[in-house]
Amino acid sequence: MKPSYLANLVALCAQSGLKNLVLSPGSRVAPLALAFDAHPQIQTHSVVDERAAAFIALGMSQQFLSQARKILTNPLPLVGIACTSGSALYNYAPAVAEAFFQQVPLLILSADRPPEWINQWDGQTIFQAEIYGKHVKGSFQMPVDMAHPDAQWHAQRMMQEAIELARLAPCGPVHINFPFREPFYPETGETWVADGNTQAREFWPARMEVPKSQWGTLLDTFLAQEKILIIGGQHTYSPNLCKSLNLLRHDFKIPILGDLISNLHSIPESIQHHDLFLRPNLGDWEGALRPDLLITFGLSVLSKPLKKILRRYPPQQHWHISPDTQVADTFQSLTRIIQCKPEDFFERIYGDLDFHTMLERDEEGEERPYYVQWQEKEEQAKQYRYHFNFEAQAWSELEAFSLVMEAVPKHAQCHLANSMPVRYANLMPWEGYLEEATGLLAQPEVFANRGTSGIDGANSTALGAALARPDIPCVLLTGDLAFFYDRNGLWVPQIPPNLRIILFNNQGGNIFRLIPGPREQPGFERLFETPHQLKAKNTCQDMGLSYVFAQNRVDLVRYLEEFFQEAHPPGLLEIFTDREQNAEVYHTYLQGFSLK
Amino acid sequence: MKPSYLANLVALCAQSGLKNLVLSPGSRVAPLALAFDAHPQIQTHSVVDERAAAFIALGMSQQFLSQARKILTNPLPLVGIACTSGSALYNYAPAVAEAFFQQVPLLILSADRPPEWINQWDGQTIFQAEIYGKHVKGSFQMPVDMAHPDAQWHAQRMMQEAIELARLAPCGPVHINFPFREPFYPETGETWVADGNTQAREFWPARMEVPKSQWGTLLDTFLAQEKILIIGGQHTYSPNLCKSLNLLRHDFKIPILGDLISNLHSIPESIQHHDLFLRPNLGDWEGALRPDLLITFGLSVLSKPLKKILRRYPPQQHWHISPDTQVADTFQSLTRIIQCKPEDFFERIYGDLDFHTMLERDEEGEERPYYVQWQEKEEQAKQYRYHFNFEAQAWSELEAFSLVMEAVPKHAQCHLANSMPVRYANLMPWEGYLEEATGLLAQPEVFANRGTSGIDGANSTALGAALARPDIPCVLLTGDLAFFYDRNGLWVPQIPPNLRIILFNNQGGNIFRLIPGPREQPGFERLFETPHQLKAKNTCQDMGLSYVFAQNRVDLVRYLEEFFQEAHPPGLLEIFTDREQNAEVYHTYLQGFSLK
Repeated sequence: MKPSYLANLVALCAQSGLKNLVLSPGSRVAPLALAFDAHPQIQTHSVVDERAAAFIALGMSQQFLSQARKILTNPLPLVGIACTSGSALYNYAPAVAEAFFQQVPLLILSADRPPEWINQWDGQTIFQAEIYGKHVKGSFQMPVDMAHPDAQWHAQRMMQEAIELARLAPCGPVHINFPFREPFYPETGETWVADGNTQAREFWPARMEVPKSQWGTLLDTFLAQEKILIIGGQHTYSPNLCKSLNLLRHDFKIPILGDLISNLHSIPESIQHHDLFLRPNLGDWEGALRPDLLITFGLSVLSKPLKKILRRYPPQQHWHISPDTQVADTFQSLTRIIQCKPEDFFERIYGDLDFHTMLERDEEGEERPYYVQWQEKEEQAKQYRYHFNFEAQAWSELEAFSLVMEAVPKHAQCHLANSMPVRYANLMPWEGYLEEATGLLAQPEVFANRGTSGIDGANSTALGAALARPDIPCVLLTGDLAFFYDRNGLWVPQIPPNLRIILFNNQGGNIFRLIPGPREQPGFERLFETPHQLKAKNTCQDMGLSYVFAQNRVDLVRYLEEFFQEAHPPGLLEIFTDREQNAEVYHTYLQGFSLK
Repeated sequence: MKPSYLANLVALCAQSGLKNLVLSPGSRVAPLALAFDAHPQIQTHSVVDERAAAFIALGMSQQFLSQARKILTNPLPLVGIACTSGSALYNYAPAVAEAFFQQVPLLILSADRPPEWINQWDGQTIFQAEIYGKHVKGSFQMPVDMAHPDAQWHAQRMMQEAIELARLAPCGPVHINFPFREPFYPETGETWVADGNTQAREFWPARMEVPKSQWGTLLDTFLAQEKILIIGGQHTYSPNLCKSLNLLRHDFKIPILGDLISNLHSIPESIQHHDLFLRPNLGDWEGALRPDLLITFGLSVLSKPLKKILRRYPPQQHWHISPDTQVADTFQSLTRIIQCKPEDFFERIYGDLDFHTMLERDEEGEERPYYVQWQEKEEQAKQYRYHFNFEAQAWSELEAFSLVMEAVPKHAQCHLANSMPVRYANLMPWEGYLEEATGLLAQPEVFANRGTSGIDGANSTALGAALARPDIPCVLLTGDLAFFYDRNGLWVPQIPPNLRIILFNNQGGNIFRLIPGPREQPGFERLFETPHQLKAKNTCQDMGLSYVFAQNRVDLVRYLEEFFQEAHPPGLLEIFTDREQNAEVYHTYLQGFSLK
């Protein structure tokens, strides 16, 4: 293939906002590697393990997406991954599935043998076309021969379609397969320079609005409800969204609830401790807390108590606000899907309510008992939390979490690994401080791979995020199984200086001791907990991370102070705890509240 | 689901020869973990990283397959893998593809949410049905509800169909997806004991024979050829096959050629050094070496010179002997596919030739010039190899390989990682010693993941193989990228005592300096070679392997002596070499021969 054919495609990518390519080396991927690397506006990052490479790209893309939503970057910067043929691209699969369900754009470029050599036992050849099944938004097969001008147009058109597809809501991964015949390298005189006047076409997505005719009905229904509850699923931090929600909360006393992953914790008085107070209080729910109208937006909900209770006692009406057509019925109660961006929806509703209800409000009185009920629960949980005497307990992961959470800088981004870290953090959310300018609380933005909720890829995702946002600290809170699972996520030429990993090492799968069920089973340790002796010290030494460990509260507090300072080298702080003690304190903590 | 429903399925597995289950812990996989673990004839092995778990199972299954072919075990012992829902089973994908193309049976059991919760943003949920696409021989979806007797029969029937499919030639992976609703644990009084009189059905595969009417024609064609060449693709070691081939070689002077992965190196005077002598000798090929009739069997061919030459100068006729219906046309010359086991084919042809040709032979004279030509080439290459003065060269990987190959015990199994180790080994095959009883040479059996030829999974595969064959040493020769890529392959509760890893560490992807093309490209080191500073010492310390390293020939020879002794703990011997020196010696070696 003439290098210029490929260079034209690369030029289109660059014009469309692809600025980073995470590349895993190989022989057949050479044309892609060289063509992308030759482009002055594209940075290539070399990562050997494709599984990690794809999660690193996911972490970068997550950041660009989050940034784009805040400052409305247009076009959204894209991240590509490129690998050689064969099992290489099957190692991408876990990250591809995560990107799909988390709705993060990703351009997957795979080198392939030409079709005549598929399934012929030639080296590094598998069935690459359509390999990711339903876990990509689209699969494209590049032409093998591009000598004909129509083939070049076909290739360029597909490249643009792929980019558009990855970026259109719901965003997601798109796969482009490149069959290459040898030779892979330019002949004398050939260069990786685009030779056509390729100009990426633009795509102007519609603004989605609820039609005026329906909006009135919607508003009337809204106003008729006594108990309205707003719950956010996973969502990147959006100041505009939070501002609108905060106004709704403040002026109309509508409770706003979200797990940490919904990034609503910057809203003052938002409900954050539901994971604690919803556990034992089914009775309260039936009575005062159950909403008449539930309004949701975003993706997955973390809190199992919340899901259980709402599924058991569904609201009369449940609206889900989403720009996409395909939504999940998380609480088995969905009555209306409203196709609209949540930012736009809540801004409009606040604006109209303001006008609509100015008079009625005073008659009703400001005190909305439904809001007060929620606030009382939240306050009760907070009081319990802040008065819980950890010092009377054995040293535990829960305590370590509460200390660590306090120490995470407010301007950092914070990544929470599955399975326990994200749950612990949700039990111990932050206290923020009010920023006058916005009326919101300063809080770290939270990221977690809750698309598929696997323990894989946590290090890689955080590392990718740290690369994409070198201006702020990138903090990963992770467990030992997730950390060692993805240790290759740290196998990169250079660890970003802003990366800080806090590893909660209890030397096994502690979650199985915390959830009901496994610990009563025969073979519990061997089949579920899988204890191990691994410590992170050697891995850190190998990978170029500074290392320190804590085995008690005094050490931890001491180390935390230094750990987040800007001058501190990229590092890992390992916290050792005991699985049995962790389980004891965890259960004491939860049961203590329910006994109140 | 009642535990007994699942226990019935497990009983069928056990009756059908499933003896090992590699389990990765999780919550939803609990019913599978407990049900399989409860069966007295099934051993469960716990491995956290699913990517490694699947390759470990592949390594075990490879061994059982190889054993079954030697001693005709019936039924072939099966290996299963089981994991929780979500991205967990996507981490299996690389090993699944390898098993598919290497034709190794594997039973993939995945726990899943029930269908109503798919794509609803619930934790650990992806599109699991049919997830491996064309890379499995079949995909089965277990019923969610098994209360109805027909549903139980359906489940049991599918379990048996899956097992049969995995084991029928061509063997391969089969996926069974288990949707489980909560609760996952037995209620009081329930046990994991089969309650039916489940009895696994038998499957009697046909013996495949060339029909008599066609056999005569075949024999006549065979006899009419002056230049017959037999080439084996990848194949496990089969003494019977080698004996028949050896008789054909000895009595009828038919050259037998095979890469190390075809396990024909126990045949005396078989052609082993073709990777060296075929490189420059296209002229000879056109003249004396090109076959009239090429007979092949087995899977992939490693040697690139061999493939290039045969594709350029195809034989007049090319028969491929295989029990399967789907075969590859490796040399672009296939004229006849003969459905038959190679063992049976060559045994029969030898028997009939013997009778048929007893008289004619003497007239022709024993000296077959075609055989002699090949022998001369082989001898020339051997002479070159054994007289090559490594001591006049800088210390290099090629020399290290030649020393290591000599030291590998003949009764060991030897695993060769992609990409360079398998090629180096093929350049430096073993000298065996003749075993009187068989007429064959004692040689290590060779395994390599040449189904997809990825660098992934090498440690895991060898570790699985070591588990499956505790009676012999299991030696892995690997490179640094492959080793660190798969370091989680060593993350198991206990390293098998018979495992020996020899790591050729040149701190980068040295192959790109050896093959033509990459090293002339801009950004060569960064885009292709990806240099790193990693050494295996820390990983060995973490994983419980003894560790020693060598940086020169003297140390290497000294360490090798001890390393393979039975009393030596499981260990890793790391050999450091320099990429540039390696390239220099490699090219000197190859060019030196071509200049002769």
